[in-house]
Amino acid sequence: MIESTVVDMRAPYLIMIGDVHDPLYAKTGFGIVQWRRDQVAGQLRFAGCPVDMGVPDLTVQEAKAAGAASLVIGVAPVGGEIPESWWAVIEEAAAAGLDIVCGLHIRLQDYPAIVEAANVSGARLIDVRVPPRKLPVGTGRKRSGKRVLMVGTDCAVGKKYSALALDQALRGAGIKSTFRATGQTGIMIAGSGIPIDAVVSDFVSGAAELLSPDNEADHWDVIEGQGSLFHPGYAAVSLGLLHGSQPDAIVLCHEAGRTEIDEWDGFTLPGIAECIALNLLNGKLTNPSIRCVGVSVNTSSLPAAEREGWLAALSAETGLPCVDPLVEGMQAIVNNMLSS
Amino acid sequence: MIESTVVDMRAPYLIMIGDVHDPLYAKTGFGIVQWRRDQVAGQLRFAGCPVDMGVPDLTVQEAKAAGAASLVIGVAPVGGEIPESWWAVIEEAAAAGLDIVCGLHIRLQDYPAIVEAANVSGARLIDVRVPPRKLPVGTGRKRSGKRVLMVGTDCAVGKKYSALALDQALRGAGIKSTFRATGQTGIMIAGSGIPIDAVVSDFVSGAAELLSPDNEADHWDVIEGQGSLFHPGYAAVSLGLLHGSQPDAIVLCHEAGRTEIDEWDGFTLPGIAECIALNLLNGKLTNPSIRCVGVSVNTSSLPAAEREGWLAALSAETGLPCVDPLVEGMQAIVNNMLSS
Repeated sequence: MIESTVVDMRAPYLIMIGDVHDPLYAKTGFGIVQWRRDQVAGQLRFAGCPVDMGVPDLTVQEAKAAGAASLVIGVAPVGGEIPESWWAVIEEAAAAGLDIVCGLHIRLQDYPAIVEAANVSGARLIDVRVPPRKLPVGTGRKRSGKRVLMVGTDCAVGKKYSALALDQALRGAGIKSTFRATGQTGIMIAGSGIPIDAVVSDFVSGAAELLSPDNEADHWDVIEGQGSLFHPGYAAVSLGLLHGSQPDAIVLCHEAGRTEIDEWDGFTLPGIAECIALNLLNGKLTNPSIRCVGVSVNTSSLPAAEREGWLAALSAETGLPCVDPLVEGMQAIVNNMLSS
Repeated sequence: MIESTVVDMRAPYLIMIGDVHDPLYAKTGFGIVQWRRDQVAGQLRFAGCPVDMGVPDLTVQEAKAAGAASLVIGVAPVGGEIPESWWAVIEEAAAAGLDIVCGLHIRLQDYPAIVEAANVSGARLIDVRVPPRKLPVGTGRKRSGKRVLMVGTDCAVGKKYSALALDQALRGAGIKSTFRATGQTGIMIAGSGIPIDAVVSDFVSGAAELLSPDNEADHWDVIEGQGSLFHPGYAAVSLGLLHGSQPDAIVLCHEAGRTEIDEWDGFTLPGIAECIALNLLNGKLTNPSIRCVGVSVNTSSLPAAEREGWLAALSAETGLPCVDPLVEGMQAIVNNMLSS
C-alpha cells in the first residue's frame, strides 16, 4: 500500500453509492458526475438501490476491465460511517488494484483487511480529509498568475458550487482556469486539493499558497472558499485562506433569506456590503489590488416573482453583478472579472 | 506512564538547564524563575555550566527529597533538540517519579527508555506543544467573567511579557486575575494552557474558549496573544484567538522602531491606530463592547532621551496609556481597564 497524504486521484472512477436511499447523501457522487463526467467510468450500486446518478452500473471487475483506476466512496452518510455491508466490495476493489478514495471521517488505514489487500495489489488508500504533511508557513510572496476566491456571509452558501460554475464559465469563454478545492467534496470533484480546515492553524495560509502555485500570467485559479470572516467558529480558516490565496478578485457567496449564522443562534448575518468590505480590508495585506467582482446568491428560498427584483436591488446597492449561478450562470461575473 | 495532552504541570519544579552556555537559550527557565519563583525547587546544572538562574543547585535525588514533582526542560536550544548527554539525567528523573515537562519540538514518548522509566514510576511525560484532543468548535456563546487579550503589530513584540506583567499588576491591585498561556513558554510559566498555534484551524476559536472558561463576574483572564492580524503567515491564529477569547479589552503590543514584519521582507508593519482598529472591528463579532485599554511597547531600541517623548506622542495620537512594561509597569493600563 502506498499511503498518500497529498490528494491526487487517478481517473477513471468507479463511484460507489451502494444501497444509499436518499440522493442527498450521495451528493459527493452526484457532484463528481455533474462536474467531471468525463472522469467517471460508472457507478457501483447494490441490488434495489433507488438512487441513480445516470452513469453505467458496473461491478468492480467490470470497472477494472474498463480501465477504472479508483473506487470513490460517493456518499456522506449520517455519522460518517461506511455501512458494514460495503467493506467486502471495497476490499475486492483494493485487491483488484483500484485506489480507494474516501472523504469521510473514518480512516481507511484503520481497516486491516483493506490495508492488506492494497499492500498486495499496490493500490493507494486515499483519505481526502488528511492534510499534507510538512506544510510551509505562509510567506506572503506574490505568485504569478491570477486568482479568484469565493468568500461567504456564512458556511454552506454555495461557495463550492459558485467556484465550479465560475471555473466552467471561464473555460467556456476560452480563459485558462483551474478549480482549486479546499474541502473534501470539492477535492473529490477536482481530483486534488487540500482540506484546509484540517490544517494546523500555523500553516493555513501556507497551505493556501501551496494550493495555487505560480502559474501563467493569464491563468486563473478559482479557489473554493471556506466559512466566513463573520463565523464565530470558523473565521480563522477563512482568514488564512484569504491571506494565502492572495486573490486578485473575490466573489461574495450568500443565501438569500438567511438572517443568522446557520446553527449559531444569535449571530446575525453580516450585510453584503459589510462582508465585502471586511474581506477586502483583510485581503489587501497580501494583494493590495484585491477587488470584489460579483455576488453569487442561492435564491432558492425566494418566491419566483421576487427573485429578479431582489438581485437587481442588491446589484444597485453594491454596484456589482449579482447572480444566482443556477439561474443566470456566472457570465456577468466573468465579464466583470476580465474587465479590469 | 500517564500521557497528558491537556497541559497541567505539577510543582515544585526542578528546572534543567544542563550545560547551556548562553542565557538566551535558557529563557524558559529564567521566565519560570522570574514569574513563578514560588513553584521552583531549584536548577539542575552540569559541572561548569556558566548560566545561573539564582536558585539552588539540586541533583535529581536532592530535588526528589525536597519534594519536587516535575523536571522541567528549561532551555530552547537551536534546532529544538535535547543534547545527547542530558538523557541519562532525564531518565533518572523519570525513574524517580518526577514528571518530565518539555516544550521542544521533539516528543518525549519517542524515547523508549524515558517511556519505560515513566511507566514503572508512574511519572507523566508532558509535551507542552501537543494540543488537547477533541477540542470543540467555537460557539461564540458569551461567558461570564472578564477577559483582556494581548494583540500585536507582529510576532515577538512582548505579548507574553505584557500579559504576565498585567496579570501581576492586577493581582497587586487586589483584582482577581489569571494569566492564560497560549504558547509553549507561557504554558511552562503558567503550568497550564493550550499551544494555540498547534491546534487544527477549525478548532482555534474553540480552543480559545476552552482556555478562558466561565468565571466570577469580577475576575479577569489575562490572555497571552499570538501573532498579528497583519502577519501573512500567522493571522489565522490571531483571529481565532481573538474570536474565542471574546475580550472585553485588548492591549496592543509593539516594539518601537520595528518597521517591517520580522523575517517577512516587504511587509510593512501596520500603524498603531490601524492595528487597533482592525482588532476591534474583528473582535466585536463575539464581544460588541470590546475596547482597547492601552499600548504596551518594548522601547529598548530607542535612545534613552527619546523614550518618554515617543510614548507621549503615541499616547496623544491614540488617546490611550502607552507604557513600556519594563520601565513604567502596567499600572496606567490597569487604571484604564478598571475605569469603565
